[in-house]
Amino acid sequence: MTAITVLGTGSWGTALANVLLDNHHDVLMWGRDEKTAAALTEEKMNPRYLPHIPLNEGMKATTNLTDALAHAAVIVLAVPTKAMRDICQQVNALVHDRKTIIHVSKGLEPKTFKRVSEIIEEEIDADKLQGVGVLSGPSHAEEVATRQPTTVAIASKDERIRQLGQDLFMCDYFRVYTNEDLVGVEIGGALKNIIALAAGLSDGIGYGDNAKAALMTRGLAEITRLGVKMGADPMTYLGMAGLGDLIVTCTSVHSRNWRCGEMLGKGISLDAALDQMGMVVEGVRTTQAAYEMAAAYEVDMPITAALYDVLFNEGPVEENVRALMNRQKTNE
Amino acid sequence: MTAITVLGTGSWGTALANVLLDNHHDVLMWGRDEKTAAALTEEKMNPRYLPHIPLNEGMKATTNLTDALAHAAVIVLAVPTKAMRDICQQVNALVHDRKTIIHVSKGLEPKTFKRVSEIIEEEIDADKLQGVGVLSGPSHAEEVATRQPTTVAIASKDERIRQLGQDLFMCDYFRVYTNEDLVGVEIGGALKNIIALAAGLSDGIGYGDNAKAALMTRGLAEITRLGVKMGADPMTYLGMAGLGDLIVTCTSVHSRNWRCGEMLGKGISLDAALDQMGMVVEGVRTTQAAYEMAAAYEVDMPITAALYDVLFNEGPVEENVRALMNRQKTNE
Repeated sequence: MTAITVLGTGSWGTALANVLLDNHHDVLMWGRDEKTAAALTEEKMNPRYLPHIPLNEGMKATTNLTDALAHAAVIVLAVPTKAMRDICQQVNALVHDRKTIIHVSKGLEPKTFKRVSEIIEEEIDADKLQGVGVLSGPSHAEEVATRQPTTVAIASKDERIRQLGQDLFMCDYFRVYTNEDLVGVEIGGALKNIIALAAGLSDGIGYGDNAKAALMTRGLAEITRLGVKMGADPMTYLGMAGLGDLIVTCTSVHSRNWRCGEMLGKGISLDAALDQMGMVVEGVRTTQAAYEMAAAYEVDMPITAALYDVLFNEGPVEENVRALMNRQKTNE
Repeated sequence: MTAITVLGTGSWGTALANVLLDNHHDVLMWGRDEKTAAALTEEKMNPRYLPHIPLNEGMKATTNLTDALAHAAVIVLAVPTKAMRDICQQVNALVHDRKTIIHVSKGLEPKTFKRVSEIIEEEIDADKLQGVGVLSGPSHAEEVATRQPTTVAIASKDERIRQLGQDLFMCDYFRVYTNEDLVGVEIGGALKNIIALAAGLSDGIGYGDNAKAALMTRGLAEITRLGVKMGADPMTYLGMAGLGDLIVTCTSVHSRNWRCGEMLGKGISLDAALDQMGMVVEGVRTTQAAYEMAAAYEVDMPITAALYDVLFNEGPVEENVRALMNRQKTNE
């Protein structure tokens, strides 16, 4: 039994805390929302993010970050990317011992386009950090919380962190592969949201399964090209954090990036779509990041460019998607 | 304008003839069924395989194979894999000039496990054969016939055939990439049906999107391992005829392999499922072929082995799928 702190009481943090409790670990969650923390502790439920799903009886949460950090040397960091730097600063101010941090975010920092592990290493002093890993893969939180079979990857540069992550999380419904490519897994998790937006766009226009499969295939090739230029191992994009996550994000109605794309495909404006979602759509910001990085790294990313035109120049949706079909005759 | 003969009046042959007609070629179809040939010629419809879809006004078909073969030096071969050897023997007996053959089948010959281009080269004399190619990719016939955007690959060892196939088929809704890896494209088209059956099984049991995405990801890795041992280029499996076709076959309710797997997942027996389908389910035979080839080539194919147990040993469905989750802890 290992003591573990989970920061973030959203759907994914809660589902992962549930996996860890099912594996008989001693888990304390932390989140800002008093009602959610109370419901987790008293009702063993998360009514806001995982309604109607009964969780492990050992579930408990606090709104006191000092208490949460005192609980364990292992931290699962499950807050949105945009809150990441702020939380890391708070953690650094409060802790005095070394922490192992496994983050589970799939985004890049706005404006700086930094990966989450870069933010963690910038904000937490080296003598307070045992190591950093990332857990990623095709994993809707609702399915994990209801113990549906799920397979993910844990990536870290440090072999001990990979092994620890696999040992802590793996159980009969949650399979964990280890992967050495931290950079590739972090970038893959972020960039796949671009392709999910494009797949939603295609579905929203009314195009069929053939068009979506082609977009996903060419999309994976395109984000792999950029990832490799940024230091990723291309094989990572064939694994759970690449292809696996791409499939689940592009084909499931649970996916908010896909849903946002679908609304745009139906002619709804970006502002109206985002209003209607009422949630962060990471792929919108990531499209801008990838568009700028593609220029900087001189990588050909036609799907990202078409999507960028639709999102930020009010470019015509159908013409942009159709233009992808009419590029020069070429080899695969 | 090129004269082209399309052999086979099923849904895929018809949809491809329609693309060629849209490209202003002179197309004559051939099929055994009198009613279908008459409907194609007189009503510009294929009521049996593509009901309610109006086709190009130039559509025409014959039931006379001699006439059909006299029409053109380019043949698109769109008959089921099991009929392939017989048709090739008939073609060989009837033709006297050199033909270019582009086949569009996604199976291996029963018992011999031979690829379709091998059958063609065995049965048609070398002095009657200009060259062989295969067209493959994510392409439901219904969507192609209704001119939905679709992207495929044309593969041949012969550069002229690749170029010809691209030139003949490519148009604003049908994008064609060239690929040099004939062997890889043929094997990919066949093996992906195994993973579609497994994905259907997972859906039929009631598992969610996470499990299916993981199965597809590990499935692609597994069929790539076998393909590579059989002489394929691994990159082919990242393209339209690999990943693209896998996605469309595993995620679309149009897919008969997926549907068969789904019925098995719901507890229906293989015989009853095949009866209910009333159509060939290529993946069943291909699973047997791949299972035997995996042993011969010493390739680890856990998904294929689990599916083989379900299909041919009446093995328990849920235990087999769940056992895939509980293999040794491993690296990606």
